Amino acid sequence: MKKRILLTPGPTPLPERVRAALSRAVLHHRSAEFRKLFGEVGRGMRYALRTENDVLTLTATGTGAMESAVANLLSPGEKALVHSVGAFGERFVAILEAYGLKPVVVREEWGRSADPAKLRSALKTNPDVKAVFFQHVETSTGVVNDVKKLAREAREHSTAIVVVDAVSGLAGDPLRTDSWHVDVVLAASQKGLMNAPGLAFASVSKRAWRRAERAGLPRFYFDWRKARMALAAGETPFTPGVALLAAQAEALRMIRSEGIEKVWARTAKLAAAARSRAQALRLPLFADNPANILTALRLPEGVDGVKLLADICKQDGISIAGGQGPLKGKIIRLAHMGHIGEADLEAGFKALAKRLRRSNARRSSI
Amino acid sequence: MKKRILLTPGPTPLPERVRAALSRAVLHHRSAEFRKLFGEVGRGMRYALRTENDVLTLTATGTGAMESAVANLLSPGEKALVHSVGAFGERFVAILEAYGLKPVVVREEWGRSADPAKLRSALKTNPDVKAVFFQHVETSTGVVNDVKKLAREAREHSTAIVVVDAVSGLAGDPLRTDSWHVDVVLAASQKGLMNAPGLAFASVSKRAWRRAERAGLPRFYFDWRKARMALAAGETPFTPGVALLAAQAEALRMIRSEGIEKVWARTAKLAAAARSRAQALRLPLFADNPANILTALRLPEGVDGVKLLADICKQDGISIAGGQGPLKGKIIRLAHMGHIGEADLEAGFKALAKRLRRSNARRSSI
Repeated sequence: MKKRILLTPGPTPLPERVRAALSRAVLHHRSAEFRKLFGEVGRGMRYALRTENDVLTLTATGTGAMESAVANLLSPGEKALVHSVGAFGERFVAILEAYGLKPVVVREEWGRSADPAKLRSALKTNPDVKAVFFQHVETSTGVVNDVKKLAREAREHSTAIVVVDAVSGLAGDPLRTDSWHVDVVLAASQKGLMNAPGLAFASVSKRAWRRAERAGLPRFYFDWRKARMALAAGETPFTPGVALLAAQAEALRMIRSEGIEKVWARTAKLAAAARSRAQALRLPLFADNPANILTALRLPEGVDGVKLLADICKQDGISIAGGQGPLKGKIIRLAHMGHIGEADLEAGFKALAKRLRRSNARRSSI
Repeated sequence: MKKRILLTPGPTPLPERVRAALSRAVLHHRSAEFRKLFGEVGRGMRYALRTENDVLTLTATGTGAMESAVANLLSPGEKALVHSVGAFGERFVAILEAYGLKPVVVREEWGRSADPAKLRSALKTNPDVKAVFFQHVETSTGVVNDVKKLAREAREHSTAIVVVDAVSGLAGDPLRTDSWHVDVVLAASQKGLMNAPGLAFASVSKRAWRRAERAGLPRFYFDWRKARMALAAGETPFTPGVALLAAQAEALRMIRSEGIEKVWARTAKLAAAARSRAQALRLPLFADNPANILTALRLPEGVDGVKLLADICKQDGISIAGGQGPLKGKIIRLAHMGHIGEADLEAGFKALAKRLRRSNARRSSI
């Protein structure tokens, strides 16, 4: 039995302490004990998000949080803008369309980050946009966006609510919700937050609340107003994922005790190590502005990425992510977020090196 | 430190084996290992539900599954009917209203089960109803509905899709999805399924699929069509709760190895024990047709149920549920589903007996 190593951008491995918390006895969600735990998770999330805003907890994964932002901030017929740099940007587009809206979409070539000048120009043409959606880190391409600059453009050239999907980037790449004036930040438990998947979070600014109070799209399970009302009593409107919350409290304790800026710095160091290992293998970076939480690398022409990763998974017990959509088989993505450490990354690169050498030898012998 | 005992109708305590599975290493959701696990959960759920229909898995709690049924089966302006016998019936009404629909609602006095004759007469007046919603067990009142008869009325007097909320009743009170011709059954992980909260399930008949394919209400995260497409490849459309799925597979193994009919019989025996203990305490049953998974009892006039349960929780470490909405403080609800055993129930009744004796003594001395 090989030790299994996860280098996938979520689910990520869990620290022992978090796994222990996950399996501790389940508690009832209408109890003082639960309210204490839930309060601690809320404080920890505000700390990790660098915000004083309400942080709502949803029992769902990241896409549920993304949908909640659409359903709570918009009314039928209203205009929204997505600045899309990859598969998760397209997910915002698909959600908006599922709700009958026709979003304005600014698209970048995959591998490039969002250009603030393009956002500005789109807002000038569409001053009536009610919400702007973009990613912090676009997990499909390994790009980190300049959230601070994009949020500033949105603020200066519209009254739109700024919604940032930080599902993969939170507690990895720097993000300062309040000082960067981001209205809504979406997050999920299974990445930098070092928990199993099944919880999602949304931080909501006062400005965003004013929209959420009167937005007309249908919602119930994801209704932020219900979540806020229950939060005032220290609870959730529906049965929450209590075991996941106990584990989340433990992971947030670890993040607080290390310090969020140190978590960012540690992740940046891992990213630098990954980039230098990639350079040694002559694998070019796919992203123009690479994120700290994962490294996307272009494979040499002629290498079948799907087979490469399947072999590594099967024979070395190491899960590395491939490309999504049009990038399938062409890029690989190694995560270095949360509890993933230098040794895991080294094992991943060694497995890659071994197989790429073989495939090089095979190709040069043809 | 007292051992804590949960007699609440979800979250319920987890068997050791399930807790161990929950904390095992997280796995990646795009892997052969995951597909094997997910396939096993699907087969186990079809077994527990007594169905050959597709069973979809949602990373959410029960209310998410309820909302998914509304959003996937109906179009704007269509007529739906809810036969409501308590708080969870009213939740269906609230979800339908949140989606802009105006449901026909047949209401029973709380504590009574749904009268099939009333359903028939409502369907005769509203032959154009597209979906009928009701509970298997109504957790707020402790009633079990005659699902078989209600489903037959719906089939005979309409073409409506029959949707049954079995979130609390599954793997406790008998339910035979296919032989009773129930189109959609909704379930959740944290009750009879003996897992932590965070997974929900929906079994969908062929008839229901025909509606779901063209229903017009907006949906994305809960879109059954996406779930079915991913299921064909052995996966989920979005990151699922992998740790919860590993735990669910373990709990379903336990249910299969005991046998679902034996689980029902064991639960019925616990219910009989609870009823006889209640009789000894002269606490009348609240439900006309009491469920096997929980017993709702009327408190004597003058007893403050909220205080009673708070005291028991604090001093004896036993969580017993109170009444919801108009029943707050007036009834108590003891669950005997899933991993709750005779010893837990005995401890709960002993704590109740002790306090009721005291409060009787106090009242008779006034």
